Amino acid sequence: MRGASKPESYVHGYGSAEATRLADQADTLAELLHHDTHYAPGDRVLEAGCGVGAQTMHLLARSPEALFTCIDREASSLAAARAAVGGLPAAAQVSFAEADLFRLPFPSASFDHVFVCFVLEHLACPEDALRALMNVLRPGGSITVIEGDHGSTFFHPHSEKAQRTIECLVKAQAHGGGDANIGRRLHPLLTRVGLREVRVSPRFVYADSSRPRWVDGFTNKTFIAMVEGAREVSLRLGLVDEKAWEEGIADLKRAALDDGTFCYTFFKATARVD
Amino acid sequence: MRGASKPESYVHGYGSAEATRLADQADTLAELLHHDTHYAPGDRVLEAGCGVGAQTMHLLARSPEALFTCIDREASSLAAARAAVGGLPAAAQVSFAEADLFRLPFPSASFDHVFVCFVLEHLACPEDALRALMNVLRPGGSITVIEGDHGSTFFHPHSEKAQRTIECLVKAQAHGGGDANIGRRLHPLLTRVGLREVRVSPRFVYADSSRPRWVDGFTNKTFIAMVEGAREVSLRLGLVDEKAWEEGIADLKRAALDDGTFCYTFFKATARVD
Repeated sequence: MRGASKPESYVHGYGSAEATRLADQADTLAELLHHDTHYAPGDRVLEAGCGVGAQTMHLLARSPEALFTCIDREASSLAAARAAVGGLPAAAQVSFAEADLFRLPFPSASFDHVFVCFVLEHLACPEDALRALMNVLRPGGSITVIEGDHGSTFFHPHSEKAQRTIECLVKAQAHGGGDANIGRRLHPLLTRVGLREVRVSPRFVYADSSRPRWVDGFTNKTFIAMVEGAREVSLRLGLVDEKAWEEGIADLKRAALDDGTFCYTFFKATARVD
Repeated sequence: MRGASKPESYVHGYGSAEATRLADQADTLAELLHHDTHYAPGDRVLEAGCGVGAQTMHLLARSPEALFTCIDREASSLAAARAAVGGLPAAAQVSFAEADLFRLPFPSASFDHVFVCFVLEHLACPEDALRALMNVLRPGGSITVIEGDHGSTFFHPHSEKAQRTIECLVKAQAHGGGDANIGRRLHPLLTRVGLREVRVSPRFVYADSSRPRWVDGFTNKTFIAMVEGAREVSLRLGLVDEKAWEEGIADLKRAALDDGTFCYTFFKATARVD
C-alpha cells in the first residue's frame, strides 16, 4: 500500500497527506503485520522500498540490535524516513541509501535478510525484483514480503458502487504496471523465482463497531483514505465520473458507521534462498 | 453451509453425496471453527439446525460433559445425526428432537447456551430465529453463531467466470430467501435483536500448495463440491447456461492446482442475553 521504487508508477503520490495516512496505517497495522518479525543482534537486514520509513520504525522496535539498510528510489521519501527514524534510540542501527531495487549497489551475499512491504504490488515485474533481492542475500538468508490485496475487500452494507470505486484503484495501479491484488499470488510468485520454504500467512483485518480502533485506524484512515487518494488519477484515466466516484466513496463510508463492517486481507510471506 | 430448518429453501439438497461433503467439511474446519467453544459439565446446550450432526460431533468432543439438545426440522437429517453420534462414548449426553426453530418446543430459559452453525444463512428472517432462540436461553445465557460468506471468496488465478459461478450459488440461496453473504453482517444482526457483548471473530481459510490438507479438504471437497452441488438449481433458475457453468467450475478447480491459491472467510459470533 505504499512506496514503490518507480516513482512514475506510484499511484498514491508523495504529498504530506499521504505521509500522514501512511503513518496512521503503519501504527494500526504494526502489531498485525510485524509481531512475528524479529531479527537477531548483528543480523544485516535490507529493507527495500522503505518509503517514508513507516514500517522501518516498527521493524527497528522489534529488532533493536539488527543492522538495517533501508533503500528507496525517492529522495523526498528517504528524507522523511531519516527524520522519522533519527529520533529513535536505535537510530544508529539504520543506514539509508537512495537506490534502485533493480540495480542494487551491494555485492552478492551482503545481507542475512531482506524485507519488502507494499512494494511488489507497484512493479510490472515483481519476479525481477525478487531475483535482484535474492542475489544480495547470503546462502540460507531469508526474505519477508508483505502485500495487500484490494480484491479481498468486502463490507456491509454491500455496495456495487463502492466496489467499483475500489476497482478504480486496482485499475489505476494496473495502468502503472502494478497489481493491487498481488497478495493472493505471493505463494506461486515466490516459488516460481526459486525461493525455498515459501510460507504465506494471511493477516485478516476486520472492523465493526466493537473494534473502534480498527474502524478509525483502518477502515477510515487507511483504506478509505487510500481510495480517496486515487480520485484524481481515476478521473484522469477516465475510469469513473465524478458522480459515481462520490457515490462510491459515500457507500464505502457507510461501512464505517455503527452498523457497518469492513474486511481486508494482507498476506505475509517468508522464504529462504538456497 | 448446511442444514436449514426449512427444507424447501435448503439449496444443497439432502442426498448422500451431500452428507459425505458435510462430513469432510466439518473435519477439515473443526479446529478452525470450534477450537474455542467449550461448555462446562452439566451445561444445557441447544444446537439448533443440527442437520446430519456434522458439527455436533465436534461440539461433543470438546464438551463431553455438557448436555446437548439437537434439533432439526428434517427427519432424515436427524436420523443421520443420531447414527453419527450414537457410537460415541458421550452419546448419552445428546438428545435429538425433530423441531422447528420458529416454534421451539421448550419453555423459556431452558438452556444455558445456544449454538447455531450454517443455519441463519438459509433463513428469510434470521432476526426472528434469533429472537426465538433468545427466548429459550436463561438470563445471561450465551449464543454462538457460525456462518460463512460466499462473497468473501477470492482465489488465484482470478477468473470472472468462476466468480459468476459462485454468484449462482448466492443467487440460488437468495431465491430460497437466504443470504449466502450473511457472515459479514453478523455483528449488526445480533446487535439489532438486542443481544449483548456481541463479538465477532473471523476465521480465514487459506489454501496453497504448501497446505495440501486445505487444498483437498476445503478448496476441493468443501467449497468446489458445494458449488457443484448447486448446478441443477442454478440451471433450473436460469442463472447460468451449461457452458458458462462448466467453464466457471473448471476455472475454480484451477485454483486448487499447485500454483493456485484459495481464500474464504467464516465468521463466528458470540453474544449474551440480558
